[in-house]
Amino acid sequence: MPTPFTVSETIALLVRTPATLNTLLRGLPDTWTAHNEGPDTWSAFDIVGHLISGERRDWIPRLQILLQHGEARPFDPFDRFAQFEESQGKSLEQLLDTFAELRKENLAKLQALNLQPKDFARKGMHPSLGPVTLSELLATWAAHDLTHLHQLSRVMAHQYREAVGPWSVYMGVLKCDGHSG
Amino acid sequence: MPTPFTVSETIALLVRTPATLNTLLRGLPDTWTAHNEGPDTWSAFDIVGHLISGERRDWIPRLQILLQHGEARPFDPFDRFAQFEESQGKSLEQLLDTFAELRKENLAKLQALNLQPKDFARKGMHPSLGPVTLSELLATWAAHDLTHLHQLSRVMAHQYREAVGPWSVYMGVLKCDGHSG
Repeated sequence: MPTPFTVSETIALLVRTPATLNTLLRGLPDTWTAHNEGPDTWSAFDIVGHLISGERRDWIPRLQILLQHGEARPFDPFDRFAQFEESQGKSLEQLLDTFAELRKENLAKLQALNLQPKDFARKGMHPSLGPVTLSELLATWAAHDLTHLHQLSRVMAHQYREAVGPWSVYMGVLKCDGHSG
Repeated sequence: MPTPFTVSETIALLVRTPATLNTLLRGLPDTWTAHNEGPDTWSAFDIVGHLISGERRDWIPRLQILLQHGEARPFDPFDRFAQFEESQGKSLEQLLDTFAELRKENLAKLQALNLQPKDFARKGMHPSLGPVTLSELLATWAAHDLTHLHQLSRVMAHQYREAVGPWSVYMGVLKCDGHSG
């Protein structure tokens, strides 16, 4: 069974994601980082750009709207494709640095709010999902990191789809249908 | 299209996996690392133990059999569940250290072989898949890291399945059916 939500456990994951991606991706050959799964899919480079977009315009901005306006003002819609313009001309290393800086700033903002369990049920208004709670927003911030780590591992494994030969039948990641892309 | 296989690109990934897992998992609360997806599934702790088993008895031992015996001697079967006994009484931190040490030793052995493209087509005998090539074995070593990073992100996200509330419809990782588990 899932354990009860706590801010500290959410932060424990959120604080590790930039360094995890940095350790995995910095200096890795383009074979792994610059290729996607085909038309209209994302590379590792695109995924890091998308995580940056989330730091700028999704999680903390939505938390602030929720705290200030409750359900009265819906969150601004989030553009899932903003990175295709915003990452242009940048290196993967620059994106990794930017993600780390923004995440650090945002976690400082989160911790400064000193949220308590009584705040978890406070509600905001998602533009398409309807009413959502503060704890759901924070949990989704962490789960969103994991959905993109899941996507990233699949995109990278795809680059070896042919190279593994008959072993492909044992590689679960090669059977994943891209539900997280 | 997948790019042609090179040992250096394979090593570039293999060398990063222990540090990536260490960065993500060391010190992370048990909520994330000690829980699985239900009966007969694996936790983060179990996954790291399985990667250790691979370093001990799968990749380099099979490469050595291939180089010494070709197709004449099948690889030893690999026990996918050995970690449930071998990890007992150990901490996740101990497992992360062991994985890093063994991977380092194995990559030193691989580099000492100084394999060349002419070696890539050399064949060995998988006990159930039949003939496989040297490059397929090495590519699978890297893809296997990724299939378990994919599994790991799914297992961890599962712990927040309820916590994310209505956002679960947007989290692709929560729709993954466990093909890699």
